[in-house]
Amino acid sequence: MWSYIITLRYFIEFSYNGKNYFGYQIQPDAISVQEELEKALSTILREDIKTTGAGRTDTGVHAKKIFAHFDTENPVSDQLTHRLNSFLPPDISIKRIFPVRDDFHARFDATYRTYEYYISLEKNPFTQESAWQLWRRSLDVSKMNEACKILFEYEDFTSFAKLKTDNKTNICKMYKAEWEQNGSELKFTVSANRFLRNMVRAIVGTMVEIGAGKIQPEELRRVIEDKNRNAAGTSAPGHGLFLVDVGYEF
Amino acid sequence: MWSYIITLRYFIEFSYNGKNYFGYQIQPDAISVQEELEKALSTILREDIKTTGAGRTDTGVHAKKIFAHFDTENPVSDQLTHRLNSFLPPDISIKRIFPVRDDFHARFDATYRTYEYYISLEKNPFTQESAWQLWRRSLDVSKMNEACKILFEYEDFTSFAKLKTDNKTNICKMYKAEWEQNGSELKFTVSANRFLRNMVRAIVGTMVEIGAGKIQPEELRRVIEDKNRNAAGTSAPGHGLFLVDVGYEF
Repeated sequence: MWSYIITLRYFIEFSYNGKNYFGYQIQPDAISVQEELEKALSTILREDIKTTGAGRTDTGVHAKKIFAHFDTENPVSDQLTHRLNSFLPPDISIKRIFPVRDDFHARFDATYRTYEYYISLEKNPFTQESAWQLWRRSLDVSKMNEACKILFEYEDFTSFAKLKTDNKTNICKMYKAEWEQNGSELKFTVSANRFLRNMVRAIVGTMVEIGAGKIQPEELRRVIEDKNRNAAGTSAPGHGLFLVDVGYEF
Repeated sequence: MWSYIITLRYFIEFSYNGKNYFGYQIQPDAISVQEELEKALSTILREDIKTTGAGRTDTGVHAKKIFAHFDTENPVSDQLTHRLNSFLPPDISIKRIFPVRDDFHARFDATYRTYEYYISLEKNPFTQESAWQLWRRSLDVSKMNEACKILFEYEDFTSFAKLKTDNKTNICKMYKAEWEQNGSELKFTVSANRFLRNMVRAIVGTMVEIGAGKIQPEELRRVIEDKNRNAAGTSAPGHGLFLVDVGYEF
């Protein structure tokens, strides 16, 4: 006789404040969002639950909207979102949990990722942990937006990738890259099919050097064509970066 | 022969994140915003500077816009704002410093004060320190706005005053009181010529009980007419409260 266990796959949409975490992904001897999530799910569902996230984020990076999937042998109740929120620490919030096809994958089925990076051009006591405070600098935003247009001419972003990486390819399709100023707040929105590790922070760091007049916008071409991380500027700090959306065709 | 020293009076417009302070006003054995400000001014101006604030705020309460005045024997330079910002910790930001008549008073010449109180109706990892997290409750905002209208029928707000206080009078003229919902964020804006100590937080605490259905909006009349702090609800936590404006006729 056959013994057959049906597993059900669920997607979780959630957000987190990255301040107290060494990134999303589980790692030894460092607190991660994934570890908190799996601990909460396993305790509530009384089953050893493993999750797969849409992507990893670096230490201190935030997520306004991110997804993960998990498999379970039992259908989950409508109460799970509320129970998870009560169990999880205040810096992780579950928005919704919904069933998907059992081969639908939080990482591989994502069609785009969108990030926002915030810079404060005035000393702001309320965004110390959510924006790069650059009030000592003067930035020319129009030059930074000129540089954005150049990004679309390329697909190989090796120059913005972390030196040691296990990526098989450094090819990314850029969908959006734009700086917007609202009062003293500067927001960079960038969207692509995928991002290399550290890529957004390396782009922002380089764009700030362009805005400060240290590099001309056109020089970004040389930086990218060098395919060498040392050609680009230093990385912007993690606390200004938010993953804000991941796209799926459910 | 006469020796005559002319003193000049300046106003400072500034903001602060109250998280790490035991309120605005200097007090023994507790860190205050005023102490940080006077230390910075005295060091930079090489003169013992005392400041007078527009009002005190409680422990943990924030200010998006507040004013203080100080007197000095020497005209201050245009660089003072920038130098103060460099000297002060990241959670206090100076917006501008400008001369006023030598009898213009930051506290007594203020014609109104406006506060905002924020409540989050969803678990929000990014407003843990700037909004009261009430996602476990269900609040009827229309009832809370009914209660707002009742506030305008009264001037004696003894019921919302801290029990032990040195106030000579508990009379306040209410100019605005309104709850607005924007997505899962609830904002209470309240403006009056003056506020009693703890008053906004006591009003918010009472209004939340009205929103939760524990008290009917009309019962607010009895609460106010009792002139007894015990008649009102418990105080809302300080971290959701922001002083956002102080009015002057310069």
